[in-house]
Amino acid sequence: YSGAYAAAAAVADPLWTFFRATAGQDGEVDAEELQRCLTQSGINGTYSPFSLETCRIMISMLDRNDTGKMGYNEFKELWAALSAWKQNFMMIDQDRSGTVELHELTQVIVAMGYRLSPQTLIAIVKRYSKNGRIIFDDYVACCVKLRALTDFFRRRDNMQQGVVNLVYDDFVQCAMAI
Amino acid sequence: YSGAYAAAAAVADPLWTFFRATAGQDGEVDAEELQRCLTQSGINGTYSPFSLETCRIMISMLDRNDTGKMGYNEFKELWAALSAWKQNFMMIDQDRSGTVELHELTQVIVAMGYRLSPQTLIAIVKRYSKNGRIIFDDYVACCVKLRALTDFFRRRDNMQQGVVNLVYDDFVQCAMAI
Ligand SMILES: [Ca+2]
Ligand SMILES: [Ca+2]
Ligand SMILES: [Ca+2]
Repeated sequence: YSGAYAAAAAVADPLWTFFRATAGQDGEVDAEELQRCLTQSGINGTYSPFSLETCRIMISMLDRNDTGKMGYNEFKELWAALSAWKQNFMMIDQDRSGTVELHELTQVIVAMGYRLSPQTLIAIVKRYSKNGRIIFDDYVACCVKLRALTDFFRRRDNMQQGVVNLVYDDFVQCAMAI
Repeated sequence: YSGAYAAAAAVADPLWTFFRATAGQDGEVDAEELQRCLTQSGINGTYSPFSLETCRIMISMLDRNDTGKMGYNEFKELWAALSAWKQNFMMIDQDRSGTVELHELTQVIVAMGYRLSPQTLIAIVKRYSKNGRIIFDDYVACCVKLRALTDFFRRRDNMQQGVVNLVYDDFVQCAMAI
């Protein structure tokens, strides 16, 4: 019966097949497994596979129970975010070179609703570009980090005034883990 | 004359030879050039070469004029830090497996003088390890980030009380760039 159920779930949800095959017994994926899983799923399209570093960042973002691994529910959440980011990326990359350029990334970040100063936008694009170009892998790493940092900040900004009191340990834990 | 001077400098400072050869005309190295330069210098010893990601982190840490590149003075500063971190790493890795384990990294971070909670130490080692092991490349990325974040925090902690007021933009700029 459980075998039949798994087969039915796979038909309804092909994502489950990829995830289940890679996750194995424990039902969770670590960074290496996530990299394999995403590569096999084909979400990169013609872009080069995600780097291990980006996979580790993805896991940090969603790993709420702090096991360093990702369960299927977290994976589905990641998948939804990745699909949206990929669509954005393809929309910006109009010449289909597989890369976007500095001012385009700035526009996307602003369009996503992040309110950042010009200097911060410049610092971000500089950090995630190579020779002035941003590949999909780095674009995703940038989106994941920005989202996780903003979530972290918002949780501490009770008055929603855009200012928080941070103790050293909390600051380091957040910035090191992401 | 300038050729003779360069030759004399190279004898006095072999590091300059590596740097100069890679930096080319502009006298600065970007992340790709830094990776080549460090690999050729042999500072990795038997450890695998630094990843591009770690080289980008190194440049962020020392790039004070914000060009995304590193001049020779900054490179020398990096070199001194790298030499110290390498010695630490070799000292911890007593079985010479090329990796250190979780509790050993914790000990080193504490020994370097960072005052962090057990949870933060656990979060850090989890982020920088693979299957419970930390390779030299990730160890250096961890040391560079921790130093840069602590410097950032200290500059804002005027009362030296371990608490700072951070606005969203400043927080994102720091945490995204490192
Ligand atoms: Ca393009
Ligand atoms: Ca150069
Ligand atoms: Ca060892």
